[in-house]
Amino acid sequence: MPYADSPAAAHHWAVDRAVALWAIFSGDLPPDSVSSLATAVEDIRRDGGRLALIVAPGQEPNAAERAAADLIVNGAAAPSPFALFQALTEAGVEDTRLLGVLGSDPRALAAGQRAGAGAVVGLARDGDHRRQLLDAQPDRVISAEQFAALDREHYASGRAHRQRVLLNPGPCVVSDRIHRAVSGPDLCHREPEYSAIFQGVREKLLRVAGVGDDWALVLLAGSGTAAMEAMTGAVTRPGRKLLVCRNGTYGERIETIARRLGHEVVVVSASDTSPIDPQAVASALDADSTIDAVAVIHHETTTGLLNPVQEIARLADARGVLTLVDAISSLGAEPLDLGGSGIDFVACTSNKCLHGLPGAAFVLVSPRGQQRIAEVPPRSLYFDLSAYLKAQAKHTVPFTPAIPAIYGLDAALDEILDEGPAHRQDYYKARMSYLDTQFSRLGLEPRVPAAHRSHSVRSLPLPPGISYDALHDAVKREGYVIYGGLGEAAKTSFRVCALGALKIEALEGFIAVLERIMADIPVPAGV
Amino acid sequence: MPYADSPAAAHHWAVDRAVALWAIFSGDLPPDSVSSLATAVEDIRRDGGRLALIVAPGQEPNAAERAAADLIVNGAAAPSPFALFQALTEAGVEDTRLLGVLGSDPRALAAGQRAGAGAVVGLARDGDHRRQLLDAQPDRVISAEQFAALDREHYASGRAHRQRVLLNPGPCVVSDRIHRAVSGPDLCHREPEYSAIFQGVREKLLRVAGVGDDWALVLLAGSGTAAMEAMTGAVTRPGRKLLVCRNGTYGERIETIARRLGHEVVVVSASDTSPIDPQAVASALDADSTIDAVAVIHHETTTGLLNPVQEIARLADARGVLTLVDAISSLGAEPLDLGGSGIDFVACTSNKCLHGLPGAAFVLVSPRGQQRIAEVPPRSLYFDLSAYLKAQAKHTVPFTPAIPAIYGLDAALDEILDEGPAHRQDYYKARMSYLDTQFSRLGLEPRVPAAHRSHSVRSLPLPPGISYDALHDAVKREGYVIYGGLGEAAKTSFRVCALGALKIEALEGFIAVLERIMADIPVPAGV
Repeated sequence: MPYADSPAAAHHWAVDRAVALWAIFSGDLPPDSVSSLATAVEDIRRDGGRLALIVAPGQEPNAAERAAADLIVNGAAAPSPFALFQALTEAGVEDTRLLGVLGSDPRALAAGQRAGAGAVVGLARDGDHRRQLLDAQPDRVISAEQFAALDREHYASGRAHRQRVLLNPGPCVVSDRIHRAVSGPDLCHREPEYSAIFQGVREKLLRVAGVGDDWALVLLAGSGTAAMEAMTGAVTRPGRKLLVCRNGTYGERIETIARRLGHEVVVVSASDTSPIDPQAVASALDADSTIDAVAVIHHETTTGLLNPVQEIARLADARGVLTLVDAISSLGAEPLDLGGSGIDFVACTSNKCLHGLPGAAFVLVSPRGQQRIAEVPPRSLYFDLSAYLKAQAKHTVPFTPAIPAIYGLDAALDEILDEGPAHRQDYYKARMSYLDTQFSRLGLEPRVPAAHRSHSVRSLPLPPGISYDALHDAVKREGYVIYGGLGEAAKTSFRVCALGALKIEALEGFIAVLERIMADIPVPAGV
Repeated sequence: MPYADSPAAAHHWAVDRAVALWAIFSGDLPPDSVSSLATAVEDIRRDGGRLALIVAPGQEPNAAERAAADLIVNGAAAPSPFALFQALTEAGVEDTRLLGVLGSDPRALAAGQRAGAGAVVGLARDGDHRRQLLDAQPDRVISAEQFAALDREHYASGRAHRQRVLLNPGPCVVSDRIHRAVSGPDLCHREPEYSAIFQGVREKLLRVAGVGDDWALVLLAGSGTAAMEAMTGAVTRPGRKLLVCRNGTYGERIETIARRLGHEVVVVSASDTSPIDPQAVASALDADSTIDAVAVIHHETTTGLLNPVQEIARLADARGVLTLVDAISSLGAEPLDLGGSGIDFVACTSNKCLHGLPGAAFVLVSPRGQQRIAEVPPRSLYFDLSAYLKAQAKHTVPFTPAIPAIYGLDAALDEILDEGPAHRQDYYKARMSYLDTQFSRLGLEPRVPAAHRSHSVRSLPLPPGISYDALHDAVKREGYVIYGGLGEAAKTSFRVCALGALKIEALEGFIAVLERIMADIPVPAGV
């Protein structure tokens, strides 16, 4: 798959077929199957696809096969992939991922896999044959009559489920490096190989987070909310309270979690477009000596607002109070000084600004935080951070880790370290600066004041005269996915987020589309 | 990757290189890089690998390039993949996944990706160059001097992290169909495409589980224990108790979860090699009318023991009490009649007998169970089943789903339906029957009596005179991963499990290895 690095990539994702060249092996399919395919290929041809017929030495294709095919290629018999390479070359299809192989013989399907084909489809006559084909591990097994529908739904230019330029606040577009890594070897998590992967992820994450080797990593199978809940449950000792800073959906979420876990909560709030006032936190701490910790969202994704977590942590620390930070949509993108900051817990996920895929979340814990965990009776087994720390000390894990997501996170951490964490942050800034300039030019003023905006999310007023659904659908047709507002703001705002493997050039395509849509809209009289 | 379908596949996984043919493009690398590679290739050649030099029209390779290469191939310039196809053909390497491409030009890396190469490695001179190469999405970026070490660690015959035949109780070996599916398109989970995938997974899971459309599916990002905790927290109303059937590690786990969540617990126990007595459950229910539900493990993976869940559910149901079943290591493999059985909650995971990858877990809930959820105040946000049900009614999800694992689960459900759920169960039986015959021949008597054994896990006494670690390491060298016993049994027993994309033929290879190891061991005098 191409990277979201240009309007052309976005356009390609939006309109092109996933399979440009289907291939069959001469002699493999019975006549009625060939005739079903021939009918299907008429539509596929109109959609820009073609069918190649592979003829092995000593074979003579029949008339029906010849009639169905757009090109006939002589080459090695399956399961060798060489004739398929030849077909790609002769068809001028310069990417084996655009090849699809159809077969009723396991060897034809094996040839497709060995050729790196993007689609390998078994054509089965009946149940026994279907089971026989399964051992060749095709992507799908169908009857020949189902091929036209299969192509329409999964491989044609009009298919719904396709790669798009994601402008939602995660999961984001990630590079092929990550996609390739997630399908790594099947692995037993009690083997030393898993322990080595975990240690590697830990070392790299501590480097990205800029903290020392005395910090602990707890890696959870779950979403960012799982990490929030694990962190929130680990810090408030019996008889003490948690102070929650609340100025958006995620602050509300941490409050709900704490209350459900039975913790007493003190709230310091602000509107969803204003940062939390550190002095208000200090006053609340001074007024109640039973507050055991402060929880604050670094980047409120609700509106794209940054909270002054460093200052809050400094004031809390001065009062002997721990700080937990939800850095789910900030770590990797926004500066965050952790060492000696007074921050003791950081919750995050693999699939936002670290550019991994969803399924793995984590909590980073300072030495002081590790001590605190030991003082808090766990109210959950799955979220018992002490159990993870104890297991890790023995080089094991308490529960089955989300191995594909961890492979992805590992590759994503390699990628950020290859790029350089400072460069990653600079690129987030540059990309958002491009968008801010364009939004300003288009008269779309972000809801959050400039001084408090993050470098990945903007909440914008809807252009006059257009509903969110209409705007969403119009940009989606061109390959871009935007995001709605939350709560009351849903009716009047939308969000544009820039996370992940996404170049400014691809955003230029989005801005051009947005501008075109805005220009097409009849502006109501009096505006 | 080949399927675990033969001793040859296991052997291939155990001993072969991951990259058989490395390729570079003439003119791409500076002389010192070529000379570093040339040195590295000497070792690689002794390990069975080769280096191809691609020469584009009009180019003339220099002497250093010629000297380093095992074969020189004339063909199209990068980013076309055609010359790489040619190199595979000329080298007789019949699988593009065994190709590795090295390059310092993004076009060379793009050619590798378009060719479906199993490894695409960027060779960078410095930080700026490294960043430039990242856009081509290589699997790794290194300096040329690091290539020898990289090959040794990741691609050589002696690499540690490799595919193996997994005989642990999950995660198991899964087919390439699943591995290919997990790396599907990046997706925003608020889009209708995700909703369509969820609906598809739900329909297929209900078919596999054999229940009606009135059952609900709650899909969680997490491990099986996450599903256990979500289920356990959802059934006991205030002032009522949970009866836990405990005869192994997983029964203990459900008891711990319930106690941590603050539920009062009544335990009915048995030894870890005896099933729970349904009459003991009935008596406990008769003795305490405040018991609100019974929790039971269908397949205690501790020893490979099946509990009589149907009879327990029937007796509980007759007393108006709900039953929750942990079917984590049974669903898909063991018969389980759910409709009208009195079972209202079933917890399971994607990565055991359903043959998906880890990261997605789920709870199936009967209509009566859905009513119950509404009566139980949630003690968690992440595990609040009512929140999932409410979101699903609006075609959305409360938290970011584990999309790669869900892609994998979707493909795994297609696979089981293609095979036929009854055939899947029959194969589990046949496979374990083969193993039982062999274990009996080798004098290894499973710890659980024959009548209560599952069809995927055996706990066996260690062969005389050999420790678990020695046995584990000896079979691992041949490509097989076994599993230890738990608790006290760890010193005297080991486990062999047969889950996943694993053919009896591959087990024949394992038995041959086991037999050889047992024969080699000096039996202590007097035994």
